Order: sequence, then structure tokens, then C-alpha cells
Amino acid sequence: MVFPRSVLVTGANRGIGLGLVQQFLKHSEVQIIIATARDVSKATELNAIKDPRLHVLPLIVTCDKSIDILVKEVEKIVGEQGLNLLVNNAGILSKYTTKSEPSRAILQEQINVNSISVVLVSQKFLPLLQKGAGKSTAPDFTVGKSAIVTISSRLGSIGLNVEGSGWFEGLAYRMSKSAVNQFNRTIAVDLEADGILAVAFCPGWVQTDLGTSNALLTVGQSASALVNSFSKLTKEHNGGYFTRELEVIPF
Amino acid sequence: MVFPRSVLVTGANRGIGLGLVQQFLKHSEVQIIIATARDVSKATELNAIKDPRLHVLPLIVTCDKSIDILVKEVEKIVGEQGLNLLVNNAGILSKYTTKSEPSRAILQEQINVNSISVVLVSQKFLPLLQKGAGKSTAPDFTVGKSAIVTISSRLGSIGLNVEGSGWFEGLAYRMSKSAVNQFNRTIAVDLEADGILAVAFCPGWVQTDLGTSNALLTVGQSASALVNSFSKLTKEHNGGYFTRELEVIPF
Repeated sequence: MVFPRSVLVTGANRGIGLGLVQQFLKHSEVQIIIATARDVSKATELNAIKDPRLHVLPLIVTCDKSIDILVKEVEKIVGEQGLNLLVNNAGILSKYTTKSEPSRAILQEQINVNSISVVLVSQKFLPLLQKGAGKSTAPDFTVGKSAIVTISSRLGSIGLNVEGSGWFEGLAYRMSKSAVNQFNRTIAVDLEADGILAVAFCPGWVQTDLGTSNALLTVGQSASALVNSFSKLTKEHNGGYFTRELEVIPF
Repeated sequence: MVFPRSVLVTGANRGIGLGLVQQFLKHSEVQIIIATARDVSKATELNAIKDPRLHVLPLIVTCDKSIDILVKEVEKIVGEQGLNLLVNNAGILSKYTTKSEPSRAILQEQINVNSISVVLVSQKFLPLLQKGAGKSTAPDFTVGKSAIVTISSRLGSIGLNVEGSGWFEGLAYRMSKSAVNQFNRTIAVDLEADGILAVAFCPGWVQTDLGTSNALLTVGQSASALVNSFSKLTKEHNGGYFTRELEVIPF
């Protein structure tokens, strides 16, 4: 099992992002945890955690300037060791179906948050991830070296889609997750020469604001399985799309 | 082989869209062909075609008002028989790679044209397609009844992506086509009860402005294979993703 020296989790003020932070804190190998939230003053659970390894910082993923400011802050925190693991977790679910009132704005917002912002955040953190890959003595293509993990969803699978918009009124959400799965696969190829791993995960159906209280899994169950799977990632997983238990999901 | 009474092709002023119009014109079963272009006055090749079945109309797919105006014009042309086949062909390729200067605007434009506009155009034509399905005596789930065909690309395949951004600097383009493949699959499920077929195609690498003159296929070769495959579509193809020869492409 390999853990990152430093990790950044977006959308960490609640839900799966918060759960991932709590899990990373259990592992002493993890020395720096950067947890981002849109409004840090409202991130009550994060602010209640008293651990010197945790840094709570603001990030609005849809705002380029906000990303730029965060990159500079993170650079100060991680120093010459760079960043080892970026977890693109922030996301929204905008209900939309084939027979919804047509709304370009809803589609644009859904894809801007869940897909396009993931590209921007990943690109802007690439120099710090490259530094992380260069400095770490962990094996190549592990989260201890340098990796971009994207929290996708099983709903992004095109091949498994037999429900249409029926689940979660998820037409726009599904499109956003398929796009981000393609992003994950593309950067996995592009960043192979840099020794940076890229993997997409479905966290399962989790009891969060997004997943609703009807969901099957608690945040703790999902997040502990995810962090456990992150620690097992190797080159064979590069570009892949997995359940929290590291089972392959068809694209 | 089943041909639609009426067909609408977006982005028909050049490239594959123009080729599809030329192929449809060869079939006497096709009584109405609506070819759209952003600027009709510049659609020289379309305007040179003297065939009373052809109607050249303006459409800017990124403009909701433009789509609304087109729907009203098409309603007048097709009348009580409705529309049988919508071909979502209009698209752009915005070069973008993992290591490009980060640009939210490029990503947004790429996905707005190739994915989000396809959703909007399809949704807004749905009443006419439903009417087409109700009036046609052709078999269910054929382009003679009612169908939405989306011109996607092999580059939208996540599973086949071993080139990363390398081909065509296609990170943003790939994401847009994966998103539209998910749209296709989702509407196929959602519209099954309406008897409307939804299928996505890769036209192959074609000598167009987008494909460049290095491409393997002429527009005529691609378009004739596509129209031939359209005529063979049945329920078994619903929600699928195919080459121009109707071979399955993995998602």
C-alpha cells in the first residue's frame, strides 16, 4: 500500500470529499492534506478538525482566478517536494432529462463544473504534480509518486446505461461524467512520460446531498474503500475507470 | 432498405453534411430534405443544387432562438407528416491538449457546439419527430419512422483511446464526442416508448476542413456508406455507436 506525502481534495467541505479527507488523516504517511471548499467560513466539519497536517483553502472550481490563487498557496505549503495526489472530487448534479424544458444554461453549468473545471484544475496543478513525481522516491505510477484521481460516477458509463435519464434525472450529469472519463483516459496517455498516473473512480451510491439519504453506502464506507483502492494503484490502472473496490467499469 | 420521407441535416453547407444531402437526393423515397447552414447566403454548393425537394435554411446551433425559428419553418414544410430523421452533423474541432495553455473558453465552445447544442436541437425537434413517428407507416425504429442520428467520431471512444491528445490535438474534441455518445445512449432509452431510434456514427477520417486533406476517405465515400447504413437501422441498433459500415465501436 502506497500513500501520498501530500494530497489535495476539491469539494472537501461535505460528502465524499470530506470523507476522503477524514480517511487520509488516518494514515501517518500522509503529511499534508489540502482540503478545498467554495466558502471556507462555512466548512464547519473541516474547520473542526484539529490536525496540523490539514490545510483548508478556498477554491471555486469554475473560477480560473480562484484556481490560480490556490496553486500559489499550495506551492508554499508543499514546497520543493511538490504535490503527489490531486483528487478532483468537486461536482454537482443538475437534474435534466430528455423531456425537460430545454435549457442550455443547465447543461452548460453541469458540464462546466463536472468536466471543464476538472480539466482546468488538473492543468493548473500539473507543474506541482510534475515536481511531486520528480522528488518522490515512491514507485512510478502510484499515488505516492504523482497522480490525478477523478471522482466520476457509474452513471458516466455509456455501455451500462440502460436507465436513460431515469435515474436521478441524470441526462446532463451522465454526459458530464462521460466527458470527464474521456479526459481521464486522455491525460493518462499524455502524462505517461511524466510518470503521472490518472484514474477515474465511481464512489458508489453514497448518502450525501447528491446521492440522497436513500443511498446504499455511508460516506465512511465509500471513502475508506476509495482511499484503500488509491493506495493499490499501479501502472496497470492508468487511464482506467473503477469502482471503489477497484473493479473495472466498462466505459 | 428504408429511407425517410423527410430528413433534416445540420451543418450541411460543406463537408460530411453536404455529402449526406447529396446522397439523400439520390433516393426518390426522400421527399423533403432540409439542409441547414449558419449563413445560407454563403452556402454556395447547397444553393447550386436545383431540386425542389431541397430546402436550405439558416441554423446557428449555439443560438436557442435560431433553433426555435427553424423548428417553425420546418413545421410548415413537413406539415402533418412530421419529421422522420434528424441528423445532428454540425460540429467543430477546437485544438486542445493536456499541455495547452489552459483555456476554459475553448473547452466551453467545443462542448457547447458538439454536445450541448445537439441536446437542444434534438429536444426542440422532438415534437416534430414524435409526429413523424405517429404518421409514418414504416417499421418502428427505422429512419423511415422517426430517428435521431448523431455524427460522432471514433475519437469519442474512451476504450479505444490510446493516442491521448496526440491525434488532432483532440482532448476537448474527444470529451465533446464522449458526452454526445452518452446523450445518444440516454435518449435511445428515453425515447423508446415513442418509437424513436437514436444512433451515433463515426464517419471515418474524411477529407474535409476538419479532417484535413490527409484523410483517407472522400466525402462521397463516407456519406454514401453512412446513408446506406442509416437505411439498414433497426431496433437492435438503438443507442449504439457505429462506423459508417455499421460495425460496433466500443464506448
